[in-house]
Order: sequence, then structure tokens, then C-alpha cells
Amino acid sequence: MSDNVLLAHGSGGKLSHDLIEKKLLPPLANPMLNRLDDSAIFEFSGHLAFTTDSYVVNPIFFPGGDIGKLAICGTVNDLSMNGAKPLYLSLSLILEEGFSLSELDRIVGSIKAAAEEAEVRIVTGDTKVVNQGQADKLFINTSGIGAIPLGIDISGANARAGNKIILSGTIGDHGIAVMCQREGLKFSTPVQSDCAPLNKLVSQMLKSSPRIHCLRDPTRGGLATVLNEFTQQSNVGIVLEEDKIPMKESVKAACELLGFDPLYLANEGKLVAIAEPGDAGKILAEMQQNIYGRDAAIIGEVSNAHPGRVIMKTKLGPSRVVDMLSGELLPRIC
Amino acid sequence: MSDNVLLAHGSGGKLSHDLIEKKLLPPLANPMLNRLDDSAIFEFSGHLAFTTDSYVVNPIFFPGGDIGKLAICGTVNDLSMNGAKPLYLSLSLILEEGFSLSELDRIVGSIKAAAEEAEVRIVTGDTKVVNQGQADKLFINTSGIGAIPLGIDISGANARAGNKIILSGTIGDHGIAVMCQREGLKFSTPVQSDCAPLNKLVSQMLKSSPRIHCLRDPTRGGLATVLNEFTQQSNVGIVLEEDKIPMKESVKAACELLGFDPLYLANEGKLVAIAEPGDAGKILAEMQQNIYGRDAAIIGEVSNAHPGRVIMKTKLGPSRVVDMLSGELLPRIC
Repeated sequence: MSDNVLLAHGSGGKLSHDLIEKKLLPPLANPMLNRLDDSAIFEFSGHLAFTTDSYVVNPIFFPGGDIGKLAICGTVNDLSMNGAKPLYLSLSLILEEGFSLSELDRIVGSIKAAAEEAEVRIVTGDTKVVNQGQADKLFINTSGIGAIPLGIDISGANARAGNKIILSGTIGDHGIAVMCQREGLKFSTPVQSDCAPLNKLVSQMLKSSPRIHCLRDPTRGGLATVLNEFTQQSNVGIVLEEDKIPMKESVKAACELLGFDPLYLANEGKLVAIAEPGDAGKILAEMQQNIYGRDAAIIGEVSNAHPGRVIMKTKLGPSRVVDMLSGELLPRIC
Repeated sequence: MSDNVLLAHGSGGKLSHDLIEKKLLPPLANPMLNRLDDSAIFEFSGHLAFTTDSYVVNPIFFPGGDIGKLAICGTVNDLSMNGAKPLYLSLSLILEEGFSLSELDRIVGSIKAAAEEAEVRIVTGDTKVVNQGQADKLFINTSGIGAIPLGIDISGANARAGNKIILSGTIGDHGIAVMCQREGLKFSTPVQSDCAPLNKLVSQMLKSSPRIHCLRDPTRGGLATVLNEFTQQSNVGIVLEEDKIPMKESVKAACELLGFDPLYLANEGKLVAIAEPGDAGKILAEMQQNIYGRDAAIIGEVSNAHPGRVIMKTKLGPSRVVDMLSGELLPRIC
């Protein structure tokens, strides 16, 4: 086998079968995937969540993760944000001719590790190859299916005045980690991506209170964009307290130096929850027990005062409007 | 709004929302997609089929279709090949910065038309933008979910000696159409891609006989590759009769001129079925009633004589081994 991806690896013929049988099946094997039919088949009964995401992050390896880990965690998290227990994922690769097969091995290794941690299975897949120069190394699509437990009703449209806003940890880690890697910037304390599967955190949260109304992971567009989406979908206002928002000193320093607003930086292992005020304390305590929720904090609340708007009480006193991301802060962050 | 895709259209912020709300939602709207949550949610009970495919065809417009129509039909067909009734699709776009928004409109129009013909709904999606020169115009991933009726057991592993092999129509149309468009070749009778959703054809076939053991669409790798996959998965041999395989005169002429073996050319609106000999006649008659099965024919049968091998009785008399596609015939055909 060549050391690099050839166009013929995407032909559908012998080399495609070789690539699948030698590189993809051994690490990811399970009875559903092993059938190699056009679709995976399973029994299901209940409420099902279905989501998709393509991953085009540049660079494909960064501190704290790589495009493979991201592709599993991102889709696991999208399912989790509807309260679903992620079950099955599809994996579709678009490879650039000439891409290193040993780098592909590393990425498939990350996919395997992340899928094991999240306890999801890759059950169906696809591989395409495009000519050199017509894609950037590799792009990954994962779609996912999850089961929503009975009685769960989570949607961006469910926020009500008085509800508390809980953030699961520090913001901006992924955005800064990818950007520093891409631009070759080095800080004394290197920033690691927070890329992580949040399904177990969500399942713990839902056990502590079924009255969680909204859940979303602040990826592209950051915390500011997610909160603005909630205000629009629910027709409410949101008041944030700047000094309650957890942030690493190293991220703060990088943002100051580079002129980024951390509210717009991507995160890949964080979530925002909106919950009944009476339940917020116990949900927070439960989150802090989980490795991915250690730094969780209540960062604000929902209000009726200014529907469609997010207002932040700054540390210095005055309030400011926090708008949705406009333009492009950091391209190809996920 | 600019006439071209900007990096900021993939930022997750305002321009991403604009793109979704102005370009994607209006043609594809349905209550599940309109929620704009991270996942689509629906109730399901029974056997479910789940599949994924990325589409990177070059050129993106070709006689008889475009990448949008292909992305719907391809995934609808993958589900159908397990006997599933396709229900819900995801749609994930990777756009190159600078791609024409009016071409995007045309492609979304094709997606809408193909989804309507196949009676499937796009229920969840994603859009990414990569820098100019780091993708070739646009790539599309569609994943799909279908419901498998009770009592259906279709797999590439189910072929048995004596079974008949039915092909739904002429081979090579898609491969030749895309290749001629790409290379600027003109024949007196232009070849159109056969790109079509086959779910209704399959559902008619299954009504006429539940004893259809294998179904597969001969896309990349062509008829030869699919039949070889069947011989490997089922550990049987296959005997083909060359003069029974339907082919358009124009495709035959193009193949002779260009030196292609039509058995390896991609098809996007054809299927191969393997069925009980007693049922083959009525399945065939049923297929010929459907617009996408008009030229269906029984092209050979399954044998125990040479497991793992496809043998073709040629028109001139002698038999030859038909191997799986090795190397690359036509890259980026789907």
C-alpha cells in the first residue's frame, strides 16, 4: 500500500476496499459497520434526534485534539444539546490526493478514542478522494442519531423570564488553541483546546433536574452567538454578568494581546444551559462533579425587559449590548 | 447580500444565519428543519436504516443533473438498497469562498426538486466555508434515515446459487455524461446522467416479491464492482450474459471511442437485484412498469461453481473473468 492517498482510493474499486479494510475497519470495527452494506440497520423505538456536521478545521492537529476527535465530539455534543443519548454515528471522509496515510491513521485513532469515551459506535461510512489542491488535506462529516429520554423537552425556544443561565466552564480555549497553532504563536502557558464529549455531563444534569429548558454548545460564533439565538428563538432578553464568566488567564492574555473578544471565540467542550431558578443550584453542583463541568458557573438570567437582546453588566459598572457575531472572527475553527 | 460566498458565511454568526434564512430555509422549509435546533427530533418505531455519502462530483453541473440532485438521489438510493423507505435526510455543505450564490440557488433548487420527487424531507443541516483554493466549489454530504418494512431481509450476503440477477436499465450513462461534460467532448447523441431516486421502484419490487435477497446501486466502480462485492459477501459465483446487459448505443459508442469498459462506469439511477428464480419474472414485469425500470433485464445468475468470482459469457462465445475495478477509471464521478 502506498504511503499516501491516491485518487484510486476513492474509485469504489479495489483500492477503496483496501483502504476501508486495512485503515478504517480494524480500529472502528463493530458488527453493524462490519456488514459493509449501503446502510446500517438497527431497531429503535421512541424519540430520536438526528444531526449532522462537517469539520474543516485548519490545522488538522492542534493542542488538545485533532479533526478526528473534533468530528466525534462535535456531533455527540449536538445530539446531547437536545437531551439525546448519542448512539450511532456515520463517518464520511473527503481526502485530498497525496494526504499522508500515517496521518490518517492518527486521526482514525483519535476517532476511535473519542467514540469509546462517548460510548457511541460508528456504524456507516463513506470515503471520497479529490485531486491534489482541490481540498485541504481532509474534511470529515459525521452525522449522528441519539435517543431522547421520555419527558425531555429541550429547545432554544423554551427560555422564560427568571430562568438562570449556566455555563459549564471557561470560554475561548478551542478558538485560541487553534489560532495559535495555525499562526505559530507561542505563549508561556500554551492553551489547549477544550474539545470533549459532553453527553455524560448532560445525562448527569438531566438526572438532577428534568426542568432544563435550553442547552446549546457555544462553538462557532461563541457564547455571544448562542445567547443571541436563545433570545430570538424564545423572544426574551438575557442579562449576563461579565465577572461570572469563567476564563483561563492564558486565554484572557491571548485575547488582550490579539484583540479578540472571548465571547465570540469557539468552544468545543462547553455548554450553556437555561434552567428554572429553583433548580439552578443543584444542577450546578452536579455539573461541578464532572470533569467537563468543574468550572461551571451561573453567569446570568433571562428577562422580559429587552426581548431579542443580550445585555452584559460589565465589571466596571455600565451595561453593554452583546450582539451576535458579525463578519468573521476566526475562519475554519471547526 | 454579496453575490459570492464569503468566509464569514461559515462563521456561525450573522452572515451564517443570513445564508441559512435567505438561501436554504425558504426552498427546503418544513416544521422539523424550521426549528433550527442542533438536531431534528422525531418519533420512530421499528427497523431503521442509516447511511451517509459525501458528493464531490466534478463538474458540479452535468447533463441530466447536478451535485444537488446527486446528493439527494444517492442517499435515497443507498437507503432503498436495504429495502428501507427513505424518510429524513441531513444536508451538510462545504462551500469554497467565492462560490457563486446564484449557482448555490440552482443547486438548492435541484435538492428541493429531487427531495420532493423522492418524498423525503431535509430535517437538519450544516454549512462550512473554506478559503478560496482549499475546496473545489462545493462538496455536499447527505446522511439519511429510512424505515425498513417488517419481513424485509436484504443484504449483500444473501445471494444463493440459482438466484437470478436483475439489472434495472442501461449502464454507464452517468459516467459518460460526467466525463464528456468535464472534458468538453460532444457526441452527436449527447448522453444524459441517469441520476434518479429509486425508492419507489424498490417499493414496487418489494410488493411484487418479498424474496428479493440482494439490492445494490452500481455507482462508483460500476456493475462489475457491485457483482464482485456480492460474490465476496455471499461466498458464491456469478455468471453474466454479456448480450443481456442493457446499454445505450451512444454510451457503447463513447466507450469504444474512449476505451472504457462500461462494466466499470458509474450509474446513479440503476440497481442490481438478486432474487429467487421463481419470482424473477414477476419482479422484472413490475420493474418495467416504472419509468426508472423500463429497460430492466435479467442479466445472469448466481452459481456455486466459482465462489468469489464473476464470469461473463461474451457475445463471441468464450467466458472471461470480470474483476473488481482496480486503479481509477474516472475520478470524482459522484
